[in-house]
Amino acid sequence: MASKRTKLSEDERKTKLNPLIDNKWSLDDSGRDAIKKHFLFKDFNEAFGFMTRVALKADRMDHHPEWFNVYNKVDITLSSHDVNGISERDISLATFIDQCFQSYK
Amino acid sequence: MASKRTKLSEDERKTKLNPLIDNKWSLDDSGRDAIKKHFLFKDFNEAFGFMTRVALKADRMDHHPEWFNVYNKVDITLSSHDVNGISERDISLATFIDQCFQSYK
Repeated sequence: MASKRTKLSEDERKTKLNPLIDNKWSLDDSGRDAIKKHFLFKDFNEAFGFMTRVALKADRMDHHPEWFNVYNKVDITLSSHDVNGISERDISLATFIDQCFQSYK
Repeated sequence: MASKRTKLSEDERKTKLNPLIDNKWSLDDSGRDAIKKHFLFKDFNEAFGFMTRVALKADRMDHHPEWFNVYNKVDITLSSHDVNGISERDISLATFIDQCFQSYK
């Protein structure tokens, strides 16, 4: 089993990254090996509540998002700086984020 | 006294905006009438704690920041969309943000 502290292998990208791509994550178009997704909420209260849940999880994982918020919009980019690309930690955090977002639909 | 729902007058910019510029806020360089500032913290926990205090204030004011965070860095941009520029609400929120940031120094 691959260490969580390495970049995903080509096989892992197929099995672990593709399901996220199917769920509206996209590869960063700036050339970085990163994934990003846009989230839309009813209002700021919902958006920041969501961010707070993600923040608690991220800090516990010691793996933090790059994110932008204005009012009811949240843009999240995930990448693992220490391996200069997408690792299993990004997959884990993205999966948590999607689960969390379910409760706002 | 000017309504809070109008853009700052030239006189108000001198008396109310200049003190913020002196305190490391800068005019947005993209051509928008907005102010922005970069904040640096010890770690994500401090940064997100600060963001949470600002979020509570912003939601109470019904005046929300545009902000970006990664780990211990927070970039905040303030502008009043409804008047397409800087209003007294931006001054109030920026002043609160600076007061709040004091406790992390």
